[in-house]
Amino acid sequence: MKKLINATDQVLTESLNGFVSAHADLLELGAEGKFVRRKQIQPGKTVLISGGGSGHEPLHGGFVGHGMLDAACPGQVFTSPTPDQMLEAIQATERGGGVLLIVKNYEGDVMNFEMAAEMAECEVATVQTDDDVAVESSTYSTGRRGVAGTMIVEKIVGAAAEQGSDLATLKALGDRVNQQTRSMGVALTSCTVPAAGSPTFQIGENEMEMGVGIHGEPGRKRVALAEAKDIVTEMIGAIRKDFGDQAKGNAILLVNGFGGTPLMELYLIHHCIEGELAGSGITIARSLVGNYVTSLEMAGCSVTLSMVDNELLGLWDAPVHTAGLRWGM
Amino acid sequence: MKKLINATDQVLTESLNGFVSAHADLLELGAEGKFVRRKQIQPGKTVLISGGGSGHEPLHGGFVGHGMLDAACPGQVFTSPTPDQMLEAIQATERGGGVLLIVKNYEGDVMNFEMAAEMAECEVATVQTDDDVAVESSTYSTGRRGVAGTMIVEKIVGAAAEQGSDLATLKALGDRVNQQTRSMGVALTSCTVPAAGSPTFQIGENEMEMGVGIHGEPGRKRVALAEAKDIVTEMIGAIRKDFGDQAKGNAILLVNGFGGTPLMELYLIHHCIEGELAGSGITIARSLVGNYVTSLEMAGCSVTLSMVDNELLGLWDAPVHTAGLRWGM
Repeated sequence: MKKLINATDQVLTESLNGFVSAHADLLELGAEGKFVRRKQIQPGKTVLISGGGSGHEPLHGGFVGHGMLDAACPGQVFTSPTPDQMLEAIQATERGGGVLLIVKNYEGDVMNFEMAAEMAECEVATVQTDDDVAVESSTYSTGRRGVAGTMIVEKIVGAAAEQGSDLATLKALGDRVNQQTRSMGVALTSCTVPAAGSPTFQIGENEMEMGVGIHGEPGRKRVALAEAKDIVTEMIGAIRKDFGDQAKGNAILLVNGFGGTPLMELYLIHHCIEGELAGSGITIARSLVGNYVTSLEMAGCSVTLSMVDNELLGLWDAPVHTAGLRWGM
Repeated sequence: MKKLINATDQVLTESLNGFVSAHADLLELGAEGKFVRRKQIQPGKTVLISGGGSGHEPLHGGFVGHGMLDAACPGQVFTSPTPDQMLEAIQATERGGGVLLIVKNYEGDVMNFEMAAEMAECEVATVQTDDDVAVESSTYSTGRRGVAGTMIVEKIVGAAAEQGSDLATLKALGDRVNQQTRSMGVALTSCTVPAAGSPTFQIGENEMEMGVGIHGEPGRKRVALAEAKDIVTEMIGAIRKDFGDQAKGNAILLVNGFGGTPLMELYLIHHCIEGELAGSGITIARSLVGNYVTSLEMAGCSVTLSMVDNELLGLWDAPVHTAGLRWGM
């Protein structure tokens, strides 16, 4: 295992300390690193909290800040955070306007956030994301997995929360964005969880995993490595098929790197998608290209399309200031 | 070779098309992809142009925009752009206030930018960056290499240019920032140039290249993989030794990933650097952590310290809007 780390059991703690220190103007760390929180939250604001296993950075901690999340709970790598982490984050962040949890659909995350919500003494609602069209159920989930589309939900709902929307409105908004968002990914290499010390899966020199999950879990099929344009045809085809009649009008396009793929290739994928969508009735209204929802150093990418009306586009464009996403301020 | 590409001879063209299209609000592409240019440049502004081999994205194209570069010339991967690319970029960008070229110290880049400057019919000055303390000369350079510190020069000089500084002032400012900036890198893996099809260098499972260059060229020594804190001790030690008496006061700290290293590890390195600098007389005034000056998918990172006074800090903090760096707008 080749990693820039010290003792494997200190990776998360040391990384979180570095993260919060590098963004000390914006963030603070809860006791024992249980959560990352915005330094300043308006009284009365409905707060947004997410979390999940680490190893997907900048998701979620990198999306805590103005116009996005108010707190995030980092579990160990690819491991759900615990209910007490979530409960402490809720207690430390709640400001009288209730709490919206944004939870990727994985069994551990869903169960633990549910327990925390039951223990909390304030109003709590949950948006569950399940944007991955690759598989109907998986190693980690009953039903579809929540993947890169989660950050689009976090951005749009975060903007509305910053503007003062209440809990019921934000819950409905989050559900709507999730329903209008679809993703699919492909992996060319595996990744290595520090505590495991060896690659999560084996893959041949000429193979790729089509429909891979963000923990390196299996997707639809293991096939021969193809050209970028053919990979794009398959991914966009799966997404459009799943959208059905919804697939028309403006979309936010997210080309998301899994961590080990150069920007050069991600922009090339963007170029292929433009060709693929030409004449489809889908217009790329906004593009975001980069490493946002990663799987440590895995090579590969996912493509997300989120269908948006003018209201959603306005919320997407609203100012955001986080470690991982920033514009307008 | 596992890459998300089509034909290898189309990688740069397709990637540039995707890049400019994803940032169409901000950028446009010159004929035949010879340069990337800001859409809007104020008349009379002293323009900043950089460039170099591709494969280091977001450097340089990703730093074209408000408050940073006005144009960038992308060569083939790890290959200097040609003099005619640079000349066309100068002609298409020049607005009456002269042109400042920011050139990383590699023989091809220096020679070609020099030829373009001679052919140009406007006033041209050049800032050459050579912030890498690892080696005195290298495969690609006479004298020190220009590496990640280049982006700090581009940011600070870009802010001053946006505020209306003239060519002589910007040239002096760029030289000053370069002289106050030092970097050193380490690689854990190689990278693969698409046209070559095989890794640039071989490295053992338990080895690292200390002082590596951004093209994967050799550094100081090939040694056994060490813990992050020991790597940091060596890199910071080399930088401080080279600074000598200059190493005190406020610094901008850039922890730069080479493309294949997860953010988690980069923040862990940031944490180790904080420990290393405690009590050293150097204060980390600003931190930037991420993949900014990459070597395709190489695993590893570089550390840059740039000593700054209040004037330079103010220019660093000034608004910037590019594809790869954005704040304040």
